[in-house]
Amino acid sequence: MNKAQSKKDVLIIGAGGVAQVVAHKCAMNNDVLGNLHIASRTKDKCDAIADSVAEKGSFKVPASLQTHELNALDTQAVIALIESTGVNIVINVGSAFINMSVLEACIETGAAYIDTAIHEDPRKICETPPWYGNYEWKRKARCEKHNITAILGAGFDPGVVNAYAKIGYDMMDKGSVTDIDIIDINAGSHGKYFATNFDPEINFREFTGTVYSWQDSQWQSNKMFEVKRTDDLPVVGVQNSYLSGHDEIHSLSANLDVPNIRFWMGFGEHYMNVFTVLQNLGLLSEQPVKTAEGQEVVPLKVVKAVLPDPSSLAPNYTGKTCIGDKVKGKQNGEDAEVFVYNVSDHKEAYNEVGSQGISYTAGVPPVAAAMLVATGEWDAGKMVNVEELDPRPFINLLNKIGLPTRIQDANGDRELSFDI
Amino acid sequence: MNKAQSKKDVLIIGAGGVAQVVAHKCAMNNDVLGNLHIASRTKDKCDAIADSVAEKGSFKVPASLQTHELNALDTQAVIALIESTGVNIVINVGSAFINMSVLEACIETGAAYIDTAIHEDPRKICETPPWYGNYEWKRKARCEKHNITAILGAGFDPGVVNAYAKIGYDMMDKGSVTDIDIIDINAGSHGKYFATNFDPEINFREFTGTVYSWQDSQWQSNKMFEVKRTDDLPVVGVQNSYLSGHDEIHSLSANLDVPNIRFWMGFGEHYMNVFTVLQNLGLLSEQPVKTAEGQEVVPLKVVKAVLPDPSSLAPNYTGKTCIGDKVKGKQNGEDAEVFVYNVSDHKEAYNEVGSQGISYTAGVPPVAAAMLVATGEWDAGKMVNVEELDPRPFINLLNKIGLPTRIQDANGDRELSFDI
Repeated sequence: MNKAQSKKDVLIIGAGGVAQVVAHKCAMNNDVLGNLHIASRTKDKCDAIADSVAEKGSFKVPASLQTHELNALDTQAVIALIESTGVNIVINVGSAFINMSVLEACIETGAAYIDTAIHEDPRKICETPPWYGNYEWKRKARCEKHNITAILGAGFDPGVVNAYAKIGYDMMDKGSVTDIDIIDINAGSHGKYFATNFDPEINFREFTGTVYSWQDSQWQSNKMFEVKRTDDLPVVGVQNSYLSGHDEIHSLSANLDVPNIRFWMGFGEHYMNVFTVLQNLGLLSEQPVKTAEGQEVVPLKVVKAVLPDPSSLAPNYTGKTCIGDKVKGKQNGEDAEVFVYNVSDHKEAYNEVGSQGISYTAGVPPVAAAMLVATGEWDAGKMVNVEELDPRPFINLLNKIGLPTRIQDANGDRELSFDI
Repeated sequence: MNKAQSKKDVLIIGAGGVAQVVAHKCAMNNDVLGNLHIASRTKDKCDAIADSVAEKGSFKVPASLQTHELNALDTQAVIALIESTGVNIVINVGSAFINMSVLEACIETGAAYIDTAIHEDPRKICETPPWYGNYEWKRKARCEKHNITAILGAGFDPGVVNAYAKIGYDMMDKGSVTDIDIIDINAGSHGKYFATNFDPEINFREFTGTVYSWQDSQWQSNKMFEVKRTDDLPVVGVQNSYLSGHDEIHSLSANLDVPNIRFWMGFGEHYMNVFTVLQNLGLLSEQPVKTAEGQEVVPLKVVKAVLPDPSSLAPNYTGKTCIGDKVKGKQNGEDAEVFVYNVSDHKEAYNEVGSQGISYTAGVPPVAAAMLVATGEWDAGKMVNVEELDPRPFINLLNKIGLPTRIQDANGDRELSFDI
């Protein structure tokens, strides 16, 4: 395949709430990104997104948005679609189970690959750390050999928080950083009895297994809700969060020389209670059970079926998210701490792109990454996690396209941008 | 069919925890009841009960216990089994869905019919009151015409508590009773995170619909957990219970002239929390949902599949139950209140018949009823609820065979028995 000098034209794979944000944001920046394609198992969902983009008049310059039915687990089908559309960039925001088949297609065709979450095998939960070593990094050498740009985990968390970690790390004296604590608080309210902010199956799978964290330069195992912290955070105020397993720890621990890297997810009492009941009863299990009538059923899939569709939450979602990194080390030999963070508003996200804040924070960053690939600034020609790239153009771009970064340290609380 | 002068030989339909108790107690009193038969959909379960009866040497006098496979929804099959075994009494402790087909078979063959719970249509929950009017009482005229003894709801509640209501009623001045409050407290502990004491499907169905109570001589509708009371009860101490819908209200309100008849079920905070989470999520629904993969599943059946089998609770169950009736009226013109009650012990029940206390209290009374049918004292020759029969021989017999009755009133707390 002929690779254009400047990479343009984007294939978005997936048609959920995050894909909706990606499509709108790509359209709003298509002077850089060119024409768009959306593909998923269900073409109707792609068409609904295309209609929404047309309705809001999101395209910056005239361009086309085509929709396609695609079984993304079929590498040959993905190759065929990349070749027939001629796209140079693939943004994969489909299910976590399709990463490897899509990546393979990019390696075969030369297209740049960007995703927002780690690959998962549907039959396993929370595999041995580092998770990236189980699937993604096994393709590292091949990407480098074929000059393939593959940016892993370029959503908000993982993604922006990896860039925040690198920024905090670079602000400290060399080798002095002791702790990176990533804190993810959703202080929004969807008004339902209970709902997950993204696919319940993926959401619960994050919390039912072992919680891996990086402490004293080694992997530590805990259970969910075993370790709690409380922070007084900008805008959202005092919030509890719990040590959780999450993708970014698995690359940051390999790429930055920091002994303690932890991820903390905020949960309200009510969420924890519902989760605890469901888990203790065995209703979050991905292993099938047999009913008295002999029907084989995976309990987690039934829980997913009774919960609200995450995309249905958007119209009534109010409140804000606060996600950021607390980095501890030394500056000029003195103990220092910085908090690099973003605050987003659910209602503003809905008004702009028709999605709630959780989808918004996850969907904007891969578009920024794609733009930096298109301009060449992040066209790495190899497989990388976000902290391996220069964070400065990424942060500057996010400031412009809807996710402003702020910083809090001994000098106060202020906007963060870089002169490059 | 030829009816024997003295009714003997019993067919037990069902093979769950209650049937286990019924089989043991029938065997222990087979000088009155004769030979035994157990039939259920799964013959293996009948055989296991027969083995347990043999193992414990429960038979009082030498007799046979035969097991049979039976689809009790098939009236003709039930008729054939009654005829081939020659039994005169059928104790139906199978699922609540088979009552009408078994009753029809008794009407056709002349066998006496005894059950412990109201008939239910699997597709409906909590139908319009009085519930007995929807199915059972429609066969009342035919039972009377054919001289069929059919004793409805002869477990503990309904059953013994109906007799307690009649006893309390008879102790008061004529026409003076204002309130009958039936209180069911299980202060036992099974040591599991969560479990129901009998079939979860039936258990939850009791609580997901409208709570009907009889107040000011009319039906009142409430929701579960809406109305609470607290009592300081014998042995089990201070306990909370909640206004619940239950079978006995639907016959007592028709048979006794009392303006307020209520049923109160005791629940711990933990049970209520789990129940509330499951119900609010829609996981207790008997209506099918469709998973993302297109599989049709009834959520309640999945919840049943993940919960412990109630019969598995017995070996480790400890603590006591207290179930009784508070009856308010006047004695010699003065305000008076009596509490007629039983206290049972889970461990003692298990040691005696291999079942926990909830199954024990439900399984002993229909055996007492069968014995009174066999002796002629309760061979009514028509369809009756327990409060329509003389409670005195029933209470005396229960005192002897494992469920002693006590009474608490202005004269203190004492055993209750009758000189007849």
